[in-house]
Amino acid sequence: MNKSDLRRQVAELFIVRASGFNLDSQRLYPNLEESNSNLKRLLEEGVGGVIVLGGTVKELEIRCNILKKWSGRPLLLCADIEEGVGQRFYGGTKFVPPMGIAQIYKKDQTLAISIAEKIGYFTGKEAKKIGLNWLLAPVCDINNNPNNPVINLRAWGEEPETVKSLTSAFQRGVSRSKMLTCAKHFPGHGNSEVDSHLDLPEIHHDLSKLEKFELIPFKSLINQGVNSVMIGHLLFPKIDPIFPATLSKRVVTDLLRIKFKYDGLVVSDALVMNAITNKYSSGKAAVMAFDAGIDLIMMPKDIDEAIDSLTDAFYSGKISLERLNISRERRKKQLDLVSNEADFKKEDLNNEDIKNKFLLDASKFSNSIIKSSIFVREESTIKAEYNDINLIQIDNFDQVANKFIPALDFPKAVGFKNLIIHPLGISPWGKTNKNFLELGQFSNSKILVQLFVRGKPFIGLDYHNDHWIDTIEKLEFEQRLSGIIIYGCPYLFDKIKKTIHKNIPLAYSPSQTEEAQNQILSRILQSKTTQKEIDKESSIEFTD
Amino acid sequence: MNKSDLRRQVAELFIVRASGFNLDSQRLYPNLEESNSNLKRLLEEGVGGVIVLGGTVKELEIRCNILKKWSGRPLLLCADIEEGVGQRFYGGTKFVPPMGIAQIYKKDQTLAISIAEKIGYFTGKEAKKIGLNWLLAPVCDINNNPNNPVINLRAWGEEPETVKSLTSAFQRGVSRSKMLTCAKHFPGHGNSEVDSHLDLPEIHHDLSKLEKFELIPFKSLINQGVNSVMIGHLLFPKIDPIFPATLSKRVVTDLLRIKFKYDGLVVSDALVMNAITNKYSSGKAAVMAFDAGIDLIMMPKDIDEAIDSLTDAFYSGKISLERLNISRERRKKQLDLVSNEADFKKEDLNNEDIKNKFLLDASKFSNSIIKSSIFVREESTIKAEYNDINLIQIDNFDQVANKFIPALDFPKAVGFKNLIIHPLGISPWGKTNKNFLELGQFSNSKILVQLFVRGKPFIGLDYHNDHWIDTIEKLEFEQRLSGIIIYGCPYLFDKIKKTIHKNIPLAYSPSQTEEAQNQILSRILQSKTTQKEIDKESSIEFTD
Repeated sequence: MNKSDLRRQVAELFIVRASGFNLDSQRLYPNLEESNSNLKRLLEEGVGGVIVLGGTVKELEIRCNILKKWSGRPLLLCADIEEGVGQRFYGGTKFVPPMGIAQIYKKDQTLAISIAEKIGYFTGKEAKKIGLNWLLAPVCDINNNPNNPVINLRAWGEEPETVKSLTSAFQRGVSRSKMLTCAKHFPGHGNSEVDSHLDLPEIHHDLSKLEKFELIPFKSLINQGVNSVMIGHLLFPKIDPIFPATLSKRVVTDLLRIKFKYDGLVVSDALVMNAITNKYSSGKAAVMAFDAGIDLIMMPKDIDEAIDSLTDAFYSGKISLERLNISRERRKKQLDLVSNEADFKKEDLNNEDIKNKFLLDASKFSNSIIKSSIFVREESTIKAEYNDINLIQIDNFDQVANKFIPALDFPKAVGFKNLIIHPLGISPWGKTNKNFLELGQFSNSKILVQLFVRGKPFIGLDYHNDHWIDTIEKLEFEQRLSGIIIYGCPYLFDKIKKTIHKNIPLAYSPSQTEEAQNQILSRILQSKTTQKEIDKESSIEFTD
Repeated sequence: MNKSDLRRQVAELFIVRASGFNLDSQRLYPNLEESNSNLKRLLEEGVGGVIVLGGTVKELEIRCNILKKWSGRPLLLCADIEEGVGQRFYGGTKFVPPMGIAQIYKKDQTLAISIAEKIGYFTGKEAKKIGLNWLLAPVCDINNNPNNPVINLRAWGEEPETVKSLTSAFQRGVSRSKMLTCAKHFPGHGNSEVDSHLDLPEIHHDLSKLEKFELIPFKSLINQGVNSVMIGHLLFPKIDPIFPATLSKRVVTDLLRIKFKYDGLVVSDALVMNAITNKYSSGKAAVMAFDAGIDLIMMPKDIDEAIDSLTDAFYSGKISLERLNISRERRKKQLDLVSNEADFKKEDLNNEDIKNKFLLDASKFSNSIIKSSIFVREESTIKAEYNDINLIQIDNFDQVANKFIPALDFPKAVGFKNLIIHPLGISPWGKTNKNFLELGQFSNSKILVQLFVRGKPFIGLDYHNDHWIDTIEKLEFEQRLSGIIIYGCPYLFDKIKKTIHKNIPLAYSPSQTEEAQNQILSRILQSKTTQKEIDKESSIEFTD
């Protein structure tokens, strides 16, 4: 085989990142997302997969169609959709994060399992409608470390049994929708405190400990026929003291392929992450990952360098051509499972009625889960008094940009004054004592505290949160606490719940969506006007 | 004529607001934007116009097609696009605000006029490509009041001659693209300090004073054949002591129709604005506006009530049927001018190459205007020292949500620490002296100040800005000012320019876009790394 034919075959094993928006001018991260001319070239050169991020569900229909046209061959089209299509693409349905379902599991296993399966089905079906064929979910990591900055709410629980049951249910649901699935991040990312986007996390468990814990959900999904497994950027020094899992033969080949007898697709996590790029070039990382036993290479920093290096490795005989054929065969086998359905149906594009109906069903189901997953302490009612503050902590400006936000708008309607704090803003904490709020301009006001907290990658969990426990005790002591609502992280909520008295209004939702804010505030805020407004809102939003 | 036939004819004269996004779940303002089922019903009932807000250029192509299908008749499709399609729809081109072109006009009239005409042409053409047929521009108000909270940068100047020349040029450009235009806000909104979104502004000029100033650009555009004129929500007590212009026979009929002999379309500003709703019901306002001489009623709060009331006014003979026919005829006449081209061309939908090429040309032209419109003081170079702060004031979270922002990312790359302040955040100002920054945690740092300031509706100009003059003097005196960059408002920039010494790095751009930030910071920030990064960015963003 000549080198350029070989290169085309090798390119099939790479997944490139693209914006879900259609135009170059729309890219949110122009330094990470390939331009259209580059994408077109790469797909024409045989690149076999695209991971899309950002955009709207309508844009993505058009986008996927164009990407397929550029490729001209069966193409893997995937996205990091773990909590509903709306998590990544505006207009899709956002579901309660997996950890919220795990909390329902504690009270009602059968209900939680049926919810997880239905979420899988709706998510798969919705993703399929917009042109994708591969869902990079479920997360199979067990979040037994509350300080995990990157898994956290994304995990289906904190115990092996819960995660096993719920991920299995989710996977069954997605499979019914005829979409490919992916168990990640092998062999388990739940017990790490380092964000692998920033550096390489280490987990000091040996194999027997892993088998009794982290590996249980993976094993179960593998037995159930999960279509792919993603390897995490994690160092397990007791298994492989030198290489992170992504580049480790001991993890990928010895453990996953041989011991677990897994013959599906194995894909790397994004090679562009610091955990890899801090140490290895794109070419080196691609060759090492493939050599370790991985089939598909996700998002190398420099995709041309990575393809060239892997091509050279086959051409020079460093890696056998047989391995190339096996990986290509595995890819083809999975694609065949979904390719009949994956074809873009033109007539669907304008059939808004069918789509609206489906999205309405999904959204109704999503709202019903929110209802099951929120906690509002009995007789929690909040009334604004003169000069009261609605203090909101966000970890992402997107949460408040340019739209109707119940967490801001409802308290404002009953007389609260909004105050937003965020990780890039002026610190609200006292100079001498970090546990006390220093809000000079509102020194005697009562405060309604609303905290939006997730274990957000790139920011970490620790922003401000540790100060809140003492701060809330102090506000309570000074009789200045109107109430507290937490959206997201269950750990902070648990701590606060234990701390404050029973007469303080308290609420929690694992979901941060407007609907979750709506449901909580409509129960807590004492005002007939607001209740009417809220009713009007919900009827506008959900009855048509 | 029976009442239901009459109602259908009356409905033609109404313009309803819709989200530019396709799905109900995507609406940014569900309380202001009709649901799809309501929109469909209203269009089937004969409503003759839709104003769209929000969405992406790709979504809008689909959206306009569906709206036309629901209507089944020639439909007016308009948007408040004054500074390029990108101002309202993500992915379109954003141009330098009109006031920026007016500044170029001071130095080079011929250049400014040719730019204004070209902006009109590009904007019209781009809007047409996505399915619209009516541009609610140009703003013909003369911004002779720097405290105007709602016109400001939207105006094409501060003097009659400038505004007249530039709006005429813009209008010619739009007309070449075969789109309808609209001169607004008659008889002139430039000299008001009250935001008409919040309350009714009063302007105490008599007619002879208006004719020597405010009315000059309108007269010129009317002579040039502008397709429509929008009436503002403004009270001119010396012309009509009782009614705001929108509802005033003296303004609309006596002045515009009779004195100015204008026989084109006359449209109201949005009746949903507080200036109207504070005093009049939707039905009452619609009847009064039409009776005053207006043809098209924009965005009444309750559209069904408004249509019913106006229908009753004709049915009871309170307003003559002849007026109805005249207004319908005027609407038809304008629509006929653009309806041949307005048909949605299906084959265009997927012809990405043509669209990308057009958008690339528009974007290159936009970047070249930014280059002409920015000011960077000679030898302004900024270098970060340990602990230096990049202090950014925004007036809109959308400016920093979820994307690559040169104003944040470039200074960070050379060592600055980002700090963002905003109107809903903790005040940065001292408790006792409002003119001094109180940033406890950064008490000895040097500060690079970047201010994003527009006369933003709903917020007003006064947020923080008055404090900046003294603050900057103080920072300079303490040798803590690394530099200052203003994006937007020229008035604040003029004041600061007069205040600070020549050795302080200083820059200004009327445009707030990423490209404007990029162009300024790449000239000011002293770092080879950054320069390289910037070059890479710009080449990625603009060369393909």
